[in-house]
Amino acid sequence: MTAAETIVRFDEIRDLMKSLLPPDEEAAVIARNRQAQLTKPAGSLGRLEDMAVWLATWQGRNPPSVERPYTAVFAGNHGIAGKGVSAYPAEVTAQMVRNFIDGGAAVNQLCSLANADLRVYEMALDEPTGDMSEGPAMDEEDCARAMAYGMMAVEGGIDVLALGEMGIGNTTAAAALCCGLYGGPAADWVGPGTGIDAARMAEKARLIDQAVALHRDGLDDPLEVLRRLGGRELAAIAGAILAARMARTPVLLDGYACTAAAAVLHALDPRAIDHCLVSHVSAEPGHKHLLQRIGKEALVDLGLRLGEASGAMVAVLLLKAAVACHNGMATFAEAAVSGPGETS
Amino acid sequence: MTAAETIVRFDEIRDLMKSLLPPDEEAAVIARNRQAQLTKPAGSLGRLEDMAVWLATWQGRNPPSVERPYTAVFAGNHGIAGKGVSAYPAEVTAQMVRNFIDGGAAVNQLCSLANADLRVYEMALDEPTGDMSEGPAMDEEDCARAMAYGMMAVEGGIDVLALGEMGIGNTTAAAALCCGLYGGPAADWVGPGTGIDAARMAEKARLIDQAVALHRDGLDDPLEVLRRLGGRELAAIAGAILAARMARTPVLLDGYACTAAAAVLHALDPRAIDHCLVSHVSAEPGHKHLLQRIGKEALVDLGLRLGEASGAMVAVLLLKAAVACHNGMATFAEAAVSGPGETS
Repeated sequence: MTAAETIVRFDEIRDLMKSLLPPDEEAAVIARNRQAQLTKPAGSLGRLEDMAVWLATWQGRNPPSVERPYTAVFAGNHGIAGKGVSAYPAEVTAQMVRNFIDGGAAVNQLCSLANADLRVYEMALDEPTGDMSEGPAMDEEDCARAMAYGMMAVEGGIDVLALGEMGIGNTTAAAALCCGLYGGPAADWVGPGTGIDAARMAEKARLIDQAVALHRDGLDDPLEVLRRLGGRELAAIAGAILAARMARTPVLLDGYACTAAAAVLHALDPRAIDHCLVSHVSAEPGHKHLLQRIGKEALVDLGLRLGEASGAMVAVLLLKAAVACHNGMATFAEAAVSGPGETS
Repeated sequence: MTAAETIVRFDEIRDLMKSLLPPDEEAAVIARNRQAQLTKPAGSLGRLEDMAVWLATWQGRNPPSVERPYTAVFAGNHGIAGKGVSAYPAEVTAQMVRNFIDGGAAVNQLCSLANADLRVYEMALDEPTGDMSEGPAMDEEDCARAMAYGMMAVEGGIDVLALGEMGIGNTTAAAALCCGLYGGPAADWVGPGTGIDAARMAEKARLIDQAVALHRDGLDDPLEVLRRLGGRELAAIAGAILAARMARTPVLLDGYACTAAAAVLHALDPRAIDHCLVSHVSAEPGHKHLLQRIGKEALVDLGLRLGEASGAMVAVLLLKAAVACHNGMATFAEAAVSGPGETS
């Protein structure tokens, strides 16, 4: 595998995409067999059973574990934020990074609760990407380096990776990525983000339509979509997903922006995000459409729309519940409980 | 308040229903105001915000806490189980109680994870209730004592009460309660329970229709519905909900059987379960209809259908997430983060 720190071109990313690790079917079978023996009616733990099997499959071992969850939050600034697409000024990105470091944000509390290591990655916050409505957000080297930066976040010994982002203006970038990948008017993909009114939302959609029209000749290639319409924190998330696949580290995606970054990889190769679960369906309306496009069902719908991996951390708690049952429950034989139709 | 251990008549239950504690609106306002100051766009933590405010409202204090969750699982046996309404023999109720005590069930793993005290209440397992299709499940004293037994489970110092049940045949009792309370053919309320096939499900519905016809003259009073068509563990759950209301202890309901028990109180007085959240929507199809009847939206839909408070324990984890954010996050002022439209 190419050392991530040297990556500067999309061809190097494309090379990495050729060696996606497959699911570990043997671990999956062992995990599924264990589920069938646990003291409960077959299937009665629903998605908690699926989550345990999914984790075993992508960790490549049974029993699976969630002892060392790692939470990576990537922060970037967006040229388009200068056009007033958010309820908040762009300086809030850096202020919130400070809040993460000081332990005051939602994700800090959730990481403490879940016993997860939190790391925040600032990505040149004082140099926002280009304004997509006037030119590309990034050049190839900037975008490829941002992906490589995300790759480097995936260290050894992580048993599950929760991904999140912070970036004023990045629901605009997320909606633009969706337009670039799937087409349709921007109005189908935009939402209130941090809380803008209908007039500003219409302007947000207009700017995205303008950006997509400007870049229309370069949108056949998903990496070009990412470069022209995305942002550094979104590129880093895509890179982290890819590196996690190589490292047999299952991934919990957060909300709309995070899933839009994953969708870039999905467009390159649909198998590329098989090791990812979508934690929650965001209140941001585009997320639901996006989940249909990538064929994934979110774990929960709690009306979250904060980002910063907050929904992914909720999913870590559910994953811990799934693994606690999977690893800790007695089997019918161990507990001397009668199976269906048996009398002891 | 009447000492629960002396209760033997429904009139004593009706007396208790007259003194339902109201929500603490002052705590609610304080909690809502705090949410508005935390470093996140207003409303962006969705139901996690609502849960924190709900907890403060019913605990009657801000900050709310989830340090001492208490999980009560009531177990009972049902005469109707002798008619083959479950995939499992009735002896499994006692075997599963043994499994709870030995720490091998799903709820044990989930309580460990959530740091919850688990207590299992066996209710005369060797003396099943009467077969509802041939006569009443209980007499008034048996039913009232079962409710009182549930009341006694609510000790002081519990900050949230998670309720669950174990009882082979009790999805039949739950469906019968729904028929008795809301009408309609049993086919609208039955499901596969532990996993029966279509033929047995039709027989399950037929037995319930027979029971409802037999008891039709006594179904105007919700307590009579409980006595004739319910079961001891379901009566105990209703009692525990009532006692929790007196003790300012918010309640997390589990799945179909647990919610059906709560519906009896709701039919007596719709305000009686305002301090209860429904943790999850069960895969058992009647649960969704029942939630519409009582006007509650479940927190999650994970396809669970195990009972034994397993879904309620998942909700405890979410409640911990809600409270961690509510109590631990920095305010905009504390973190020097700009609000909407501000520039610092």
